[in-house]
Amino acid sequence: MIVPPSRSAVVEAVRRALAEDLEPLGDLTASLLEEGVTASLEVVAREPGVIAGQACCVEAFFQLDPTIEVDVVAPDGTSVAPGDVVTRVRGPMAPILSAERTALNFLGHLSGIASHTAQVVAAVRAVSATTLVLDTRKTTPGLRALEKAAVRAGGGSNHRANLSDAVLIKDNHLGALSITEAVARARATWPGRNVEVECDTDEQVAEAAKAGATSVLLDNMAPEQAATAATLARSLAPTILVEVSGRITLASAPSYAAAGVDLISIGALTHTVTNLDLGLDLRRDGA
Amino acid sequence: MIVPPSRSAVVEAVRRALAEDLEPLGDLTASLLEEGVTASLEVVAREPGVIAGQACCVEAFFQLDPTIEVDVVAPDGTSVAPGDVVTRVRGPMAPILSAERTALNFLGHLSGIASHTAQVVAAVRAVSATTLVLDTRKTTPGLRALEKAAVRAGGGSNHRANLSDAVLIKDNHLGALSITEAVARARATWPGRNVEVECDTDEQVAEAAKAGATSVLLDNMAPEQAATAATLARSLAPTILVEVSGRITLASAPSYAAAGVDLISIGALTHTVTNLDLGLDLRRDGA
Amino acid sequence: MIVPPSRSAVVEAVRRALAEDLEPLGDLTASLLEEGVTASLEVVAREPGVIAGQACCVEAFFQLDPTIEVDVVAPDGTSVAPGDVVTRVRGPMAPILSAERTALNFLGHLSGIASHTAQVVAAVRAVSATTLVLDTRKTTPGLRALEKAAVRAGGGSNHRANLSDAVLIKDNHLGALSITEAVARARATWPGRNVEVECDTDEQVAEAAKAGATSVLLDNMAPEQAATAATLARSLAPTILVEVSGRITLASAPSYAAAGVDLISIGALTHTVTNLDLGLDLRRDGA
Amino acid sequence: MIVPPSRSAVVEAVRRALAEDLEPLGDLTASLLEEGVTASLEVVAREPGVIAGQACCVEAFFQLDPTIEVDVVAPDGTSVAPGDVVTRVRGPMAPILSAERTALNFLGHLSGIASHTAQVVAAVRAVSATTLVLDTRKTTPGLRALEKAAVRAGGGSNHRANLSDAVLIKDNHLGALSITEAVARARATWPGRNVEVECDTDEQVAEAAKAGATSVLLDNMAPEQAATAATLARSLAPTILVEVSGRITLASAPSYAAAGVDLISIGALTHTVTNLDLGLDLRRDGA
Amino acid sequence: MIVPPSRSAVVEAVRRALAEDLEPLGDLTASLLEEGVTASLEVVAREPGVIAGQACCVEAFFQLDPTIEVDVVAPDGTSVAPGDVVTRVRGPMAPILSAERTALNFLGHLSGIASHTAQVVAAVRAVSATTLVLDTRKTTPGLRALEKAAVRAGGGSNHRANLSDAVLIKDNHLGALSITEAVARARATWPGRNVEVECDTDEQVAEAAKAGATSVLLDNMAPEQAATAATLARSLAPTILVEVSGRITLASAPSYAAAGVDLISIGALTHTVTNLDLGLDLRRDGA
Amino acid sequence: MIVPPSRSAVVEAVRRALAEDLEPLGDLTASLLEEGVTASLEVVAREPGVIAGQACCVEAFFQLDPTIEVDVVAPDGTSVAPGDVVTRVRGPMAPILSAERTALNFLGHLSGIASHTAQVVAAVRAVSATTLVLDTRKTTPGLRALEKAAVRAGGGSNHRANLSDAVLIKDNHLGALSITEAVARARATWPGRNVEVECDTDEQVAEAAKAGATSVLLDNMAPEQAATAATLARSLAPTILVEVSGRITLASAPSYAAAGVDLISIGALTHTVTNLDLGLDLRRDGA
Repeated sequence: MIVPPSRSAVVEAVRRALAEDLEPLGDLTASLLEEGVTASLEVVAREPGVIAGQACCVEAFFQLDPTIEVDVVAPDGTSVAPGDVVTRVRGPMAPILSAERTALNFLGHLSGIASHTAQVVAAVRAVSATTLVLDTRKTTPGLRALEKAAVRAGGGSNHRANLSDAVLIKDNHLGALSITEAVARARATWPGRNVEVECDTDEQVAEAAKAGATSVLLDNMAPEQAATAATLARSLAPTILVEVSGRITLASAPSYAAAGVDLISIGALTHTVTNLDLGLDLRRDGA
Repeated sequence: MIVPPSRSAVVEAVRRALAEDLEPLGDLTASLLEEGVTASLEVVAREPGVIAGQACCVEAFFQLDPTIEVDVVAPDGTSVAPGDVVTRVRGPMAPILSAERTALNFLGHLSGIASHTAQVVAAVRAVSATTLVLDTRKTTPGLRALEKAAVRAGGGSNHRANLSDAVLIKDNHLGALSITEAVARARATWPGRNVEVECDTDEQVAEAAKAGATSVLLDNMAPEQAATAATLARSLAPTILVEVSGRITLASAPSYAAAGVDLISIGALTHTVTNLDLGLDLRRDGA
Repeated sequence: MIVPPSRSAVVEAVRRALAEDLEPLGDLTASLLEEGVTASLEVVAREPGVIAGQACCVEAFFQLDPTIEVDVVAPDGTSVAPGDVVTRVRGPMAPILSAERTALNFLGHLSGIASHTAQVVAAVRAVSATTLVLDTRKTTPGLRALEKAAVRAGGGSNHRANLSDAVLIKDNHLGALSITEAVARARATWPGRNVEVECDTDEQVAEAAKAGATSVLLDNMAPEQAATAATLARSLAPTILVEVSGRITLASAPSYAAAGVDLISIGALTHTVTNLDLGLDLRRDGA
Repeated sequence: MIVPPSRSAVVEAVRRALAEDLEPLGDLTASLLEEGVTASLEVVAREPGVIAGQACCVEAFFQLDPTIEVDVVAPDGTSVAPGDVVTRVRGPMAPILSAERTALNFLGHLSGIASHTAQVVAAVRAVSATTLVLDTRKTTPGLRALEKAAVRAGGGSNHRANLSDAVLIKDNHLGALSITEAVARARATWPGRNVEVECDTDEQVAEAAKAGATSVLLDNMAPEQAATAATLARSLAPTILVEVSGRITLASAPSYAAAGVDLISIGALTHTVTNLDLGLDLRRDGA
Repeated sequence: MIVPPSRSAVVEAVRRALAEDLEPLGDLTASLLEEGVTASLEVVAREPGVIAGQACCVEAFFQLDPTIEVDVVAPDGTSVAPGDVVTRVRGPMAPILSAERTALNFLGHLSGIASHTAQVVAAVRAVSATTLVLDTRKTTPGLRALEKAAVRAGGGSNHRANLSDAVLIKDNHLGALSITEAVARARATWPGRNVEVECDTDEQVAEAAKAGATSVLLDNMAPEQAATAATLARSLAPTILVEVSGRITLASAPSYAAAGVDLISIGALTHTVTNLDLGLDLRRDGA
Repeated sequence: MIVPPSRSAVVEAVRRALAEDLEPLGDLTASLLEEGVTASLEVVAREPGVIAGQACCVEAFFQLDPTIEVDVVAPDGTSVAPGDVVTRVRGPMAPILSAERTALNFLGHLSGIASHTAQVVAAVRAVSATTLVLDTRKTTPGLRALEKAAVRAGGGSNHRANLSDAVLIKDNHLGALSITEAVARARATWPGRNVEVECDTDEQVAEAAKAGATSVLLDNMAPEQAATAATLARSLAPTILVEVSGRITLASAPSYAAAGVDLISIGALTHTVTNLDLGLDLRRDGA
C-alpha cells in the first residue's frame, strides 16, 4: 500500500486552510442561498495527471459539515484522463460551496506534484527498473508532510523528511574535520541512520565509501561522471547507495538512470509546482 | 508603503516550518560541527527576479537563535539581478545551518510569486497605466496571507482575501433568484463590500450593472468581448469595476489591458509557482 | 439565510471555553453524582430578547460528550418571550451539568448582543425602511467572529471585520497627504474594497466624495448636520454610502435614520453588553 | 501585591486578538502612511474609573513591533479621573495605529469590569470592613483569566476559577443523596477544597454546617433572611463562610454587607460589562 | 464516581502523542501491510496493578481511525492480575498497529502511577480508615491533568492542581511578614481557598493554627513529631487539616497514618514512575 | 557537540508546563510577597547524576519574566556530585518562585533519564568500546523529543524517533509475506532508511541478513544466543547492525556488550524514570 500522510497532518492542514478562507465572518455570499437546498458536486479532471490529496479533500468537506457525503472516485495514485471524475460530493449546498475551493486547492496542488513526479518516474523507469526518484527538503513551508505523500502517490520516494532523521554531510559541515572523521563520528552517534556525504570529486567519493558512508550524493555531476563515481563507490562499498542531485529535470533524469545511479533527487518536484487542472460540476437538487 | 504580511502570520508560519524541519531530534548533522564556530552567510540571487518573504527569512533565524544577526539587503519588492546579495546572516554556525533551508524555502517560494507577478504587471503596464493585476483564492493551503503579500511585493494587487470579505455571485449561487434580486439582497446585507457578479454574456453584464453590482467578473471572454462588455457596464454604472478572469497568462494579459478592463485576475500567480533560484554562500569565521 | 459564524470559530471558541472551566482536574463536584443517571435540561428565557449563539451551545455539549442530544428550539435570530424554551438537552447527567455553564455563557452573552441590536434595528426601521445598523471593531478580544454573527442574528449588519478587509482613512492616517491623494492611492492599491473617509466637516465630505471614496463616515455630527452632509455627498457621488458614528444610542439612532443616512454604526452593540437572562430547568430521569 | 493574570493567558489572548484584527492581509489603510514616521500616543480616560488590562495593552504593542515603547502610567488597580493619562506609547506610527484598537479593546473591557467592581466594593466597604465582593463563573467565554484579574484590580475577590478547584453542591447534584452525605463524600475526596452548599432554607443551612461544609451559598435570600441564616450557620460551624448570591446589584449589595455575610458574589461583574470610555491622542513626530 | 480527566486534556494529549509518533511521513512500515486486513488486539497485564489511562487509549485509536472499535475491559481504577485482559481492540490492521505504541505508552505510564498509589493507599488504609494519600505538583511537565487522574484511579487524592487554586506559604514567601500576617492576608484575598502553611517547628504550627490557616504542612518531621504537632494544631483549630510531606515512601507512610495525620503527600507518586508492564496480543483476522 | 533538543520542542513544552501550573489565576501565594524584592536561587544536586534539561530550565524562567537572569553552571551532559550547583538564577522574586517548580520538574525528570542512561553506558563501556546504548519509542507521551535529548546527554544514542523515520518489521507486519519479500519491498520503498527485522531465531536472522536488512533486532535472546546470531548475521552481511532488546537492565547489559552486539536498546531508560534529586537554595536580596 502507499503510505498515506499522517492523519494529524491532514486534520491540521485542513483546519488552517478552512480558517483562512472563512474567518472571521463566514461565507458572505451564502446569504443569497435558499435554505434547505441540497446539491451534488463532481470534481472532474481537465487534463491528464495523477491524483493526490484526497484525504484533505474529504476532510475539508467533513470539517465544514459532517453530513456532506464524499465519494473518492480516484484514490491517491490514480491516473486520470480529461473528463474523469475524481471525487463526488453530495449534501447541503451552502457548506459544499463554502468548502469547494479549499478542497480543490489541496487536490490541485498535491495532484500537480504527483503528476510531475509520475512523469519523471515513467521516464526513469523506461531505462531502469530500479532507480528511484526522490524529493528533497525544498518543500512549501508548512506542507511538507502532504507534499511528500503526494510524491509517493506519484510513484516517487521520499528522501529524508527533515534534518532529524538522517545525516547529510556537506562541505559546510566540515572544517578541521575530514570526511573520514565526520562519517565515523556520525555512525557512532546516530546508529541506523543514513550517513550520506555530498561529493564533488572521485576523491571524495572514495573517501566517503571507505569511511563507511551509507550513501553518497553526487552533486551537479554529468551522467558519465556519475557513472564513474558510482562504479568507484560500489567497488569500495558494495551496499552503498549512489544518489545524484542538482537541477535534474524530466529531460535529464533518464540519462542519470541509464548511468546506473540508485537515486535521483529533484528539488523541483516540490519547489516548482504546476497545479493539476481540475474542474467542478455542481448540480442543485431538483433543478 | 507596501503593506507587509501580518506579523502573526509570519511568526506562525515560521514556527510550523521550523518544527517540520527540526522535530523531533533536531539537526542530526550538527553533531559533527565544532562548538563555538561562527560564520557568515549570504543569500545570493542566481537569476533575475523580485524578492518577497524577507520577514519570514528574518524570523526563521531569529526563532532558532535570537543571537543570529540578519541584514536584509533586498527588501520585499526589490528587483535583483544574478549575483546580487539578497540577505546577509552572521552568527553561530550550527543554528545558521539548521535554519537556512527553512529561510530559503520561504524566500524562494514567495520571491517566485513576486517575480512572476512583476513580469505580468510590467507587461500590463506597458499598455495601460491603470489596469491592475490581481491574485485569486487559488493559493497554497495555509500560506494565503504570505502569498498575497508576495503578490503585493511584485506590484500586483489582492483580490478578496477569502469568502468573508466580499460577495462574489456565481451562477451556482443563483437558483430561483435573478441577478437583480441577488445583488439587491447582497447590498442590503453586506454594506460597503464589493458585490461582484460573474458574467458570461452581455445580458448578464447589463443586469448586474443596473442592479448595482460594484464590479463584474467577465469569465473566459476574449479581449474584444471584454472591451464591449466593459463599455456596456460603464455606460450603465460609471463607477463599476470591470474584471476579467479565466486562464489569463503573461502572454494574453496585455491584450486584456489594452481592451480597457480595470482588473485582470490570474489564479496561476499563486497556484503554479516557480521557485526563484537563490544560492547560499557560507563562510566559516577564521577560515 | 442569516450567515452563521464560521465553523472553525465556533469549534475553537468552545474548546477554549470548556478548557478554562474544566482544566485541569475536571468537574470536582461530579464525584458526588450517581453513575448512569440521565437527565433533561431546558434553557428557558427569563426576559424578552433575540437568541444568538446556538452553534456554540450545541458544540459545548457535543465536545464534552457526543452522546448528549441537543434540540435547538429557538434558532439564532428568533425572538423569545419570558418562559419560552430556547434549547432542550438530554443525556447523561454528569457531562450535562459540567457543560451547562459554558453553553449558557455563550448563549447569554451573544443573545445579549442580538437583543440590543434588535431593539436598535426596530427603532430605526420604524422611521426608515433601508437604513442599516452596524457594529464596529470594538468587540470583546477573541470573540469578534461570534459577536459579529450575533449582530447579524439581531438584524444588524457588519461593518468591516478587521483592518484587513476595507480602508478607513482617519485624520491620523493623513500627514503630508490630502484626502484626495489618500483616496486615490487607496483605490489604486486595494481595488474592490470600501474606501471610507472619516469626516468632521462638509469640506471633508465634499473632498472625499469627489475623490471617489465609496463611503463617508460622519463622526459625531448632529442629525441635521448629517442630513446636510449626506445630501452634499450624494450630489457629488450618487452611489456613495453615508455612515454616522460616535456614541449613537437606541434613543438617538432613529433621528439619524430620519436624517436619511445609509448606515448607523454603534460601538456599544458589542463593547457594552447586557447578558440576556436565561434560566435552566433540569430534570433527573426517573425523578 | 495584586496578583496579575498569568503571563501565558496574556500572551495567548493578545495573539488571538491581533490575529483577528490583522489577518490575513494586515492593515490595508497602512498603505497610505509615509514610511519612517514615528509618533506618540496617549490613552486618556474620558470618565472616572479603575484601570485593568495594562499587561494586555503592553503586550499588544510589543507583539506587533517590539521597538514600540509603552509606558504604563496607571497600573492595574489605579483610579483615574477624566483627562488622566493611562498609557503612553511611542514608536513607528504604522504598527502603533495597527495595534491601538486591540490594545484599547482590552483596556476598555477589563477596566469596565474593574470600575464596576470598585463601585460595588466601595459601597460594601462603607458598611462593612470585611465583607468581600466576588465574581462568578459567568464570564465571557475565553477571557476568564483576564476578567478575574480585572475583578481583583477593582478590589474584588475571585470565587472559584472553574469546576476544577472547588466543590459547589447544588440541588441538581443531589438525588438519592442528602446534603450530609454529599458533604462527607466531597471532603473525603477533595481535601483542602472549599466544599460549599447552595441553600434555600435554614434547614439546609443547618444541615450543611453540621456536615462540615466550609461555606454556604445563600441563594436569592433577602438581607434579613441572610442575616438569620448566617447567625445559624456560624452557631454550628464558627469558621464557615457565608456567601450570598442571586441578582445582587450595586444598590442591594450594602444591605447584604450590613446583614453580616462574608461574601457577596455577583455574576453581573463579568456577564454585563460597560466598557470604560478611553480616548486616544496621537501626535505624529515633527508635526 | 471517580472523576475522569477533563476531555480536552485527553484529546489534546493524544493529539500530541500521535503527532510525535507519526509525523511527518506516517508509519513507514505500513507500506508492507496487505490492504484490507482486519485484526484483533488485546492489551494484557503482565504484572499485577491498577489501570489508569483508558480514556487516552480509546482516544488514540479513535483519532487515528474512527472505525476501530475499542472495548474497555478494565476501566480506570480496576485491579488486574497477570494475564487479565485490559482492553480489546478490533478493526483495520494498519491503523491499529500504528496507534498501539501510543495507546500503550499512556496506559503503561498512567497505570504505573495508579498502581504505586494503590499500594501506598492500601498500606495506609491498613492502619487508618481516613488518612488520605496525596500527590504533589512534582508531575511530568505537560501531563499533570492525566497524572492526577491516575492518582485518583489508584485511590489517592489530589493536592492542589497548581499555583492557582490554593495558597501554600513557605518560608521563601515570608520576609518582613510573620505567619500570622501572611495567613490573614491570604484569607482576606483568597476566600474559600485552602491556606496552608509549611511548618518545621511546633511554634510555627501553633502560630499557623491560631492565625486561621486551614491546613499545616509538616515538612520532614518524624512520625512521632508529626503526632505531637497534629495534636497541637487541632487543639487550637479543630477543623485544621494536618499534612505531612518530605520523602515519604511506601514503607514509611503507614507510620505517619498511625500518627494520626490527615494527609500524606508524596512527590514520588508522579515524579518517579515505574511503567506497568502490559503486553499485546494481536490476531490477524482469517489467520 | 551533543545535539540539543529542537528549540520549538523546548519552547512549546515549557509553554504548556507553565500554563498548567499557573492558569487561570496565576500564583495565588504571590499576593503575600512584597513588591520589588529580588532574589537569587541556586539549583543544587542532592545526589550524583548527569544533568539534562537545561534548555527547558532557562526557557521556563525566560517565558515567565525575560528579566530573570539564568546562569547554566552544569550544561546538559555534565556529571554532578551532591552539593554541586547546577543552575544559578537571579531577578525579581515573585516570578522566580512561580517558575521554579516547572523548571525543576523538567530538570529532575530529564536528568533522571540522563543519569540512568549514563550508568548503563558506563557499565557497557567497561566491556566494549563500541557497543551503543539506545532508547526506544516507550517514552512519556508528549515528551519524546526532550527525553531522547536526555538520553543523548547521558551518553546514549537514539533509536528511531518515531514510526516515520525507519522501518522495523515485526511478525505482526508479516502475513502472506516472507521476511525476504518484506525487506525487499521496504528497501525499494524507503531508500536510505534503516530496515530492521525483529528476529527470534537464527533462521530469521539468516533470512533477514541475506535479504538486505540493514539491522536485526534480536528479541529476548540470552547473551550467548545473541553472540551466535551476531556472528551469523555478520558472516552474511558484514555491515549489518546487530541490536538486542527485551527487558535488558543495568545488570544484564554488560553481558550483551561482551557478546559483541552493536546496539542495546532499553525501554526502561524512558518508561521507568527516577527523578534526579535536586534541591533549591533561595536567598532574598538584602536579607
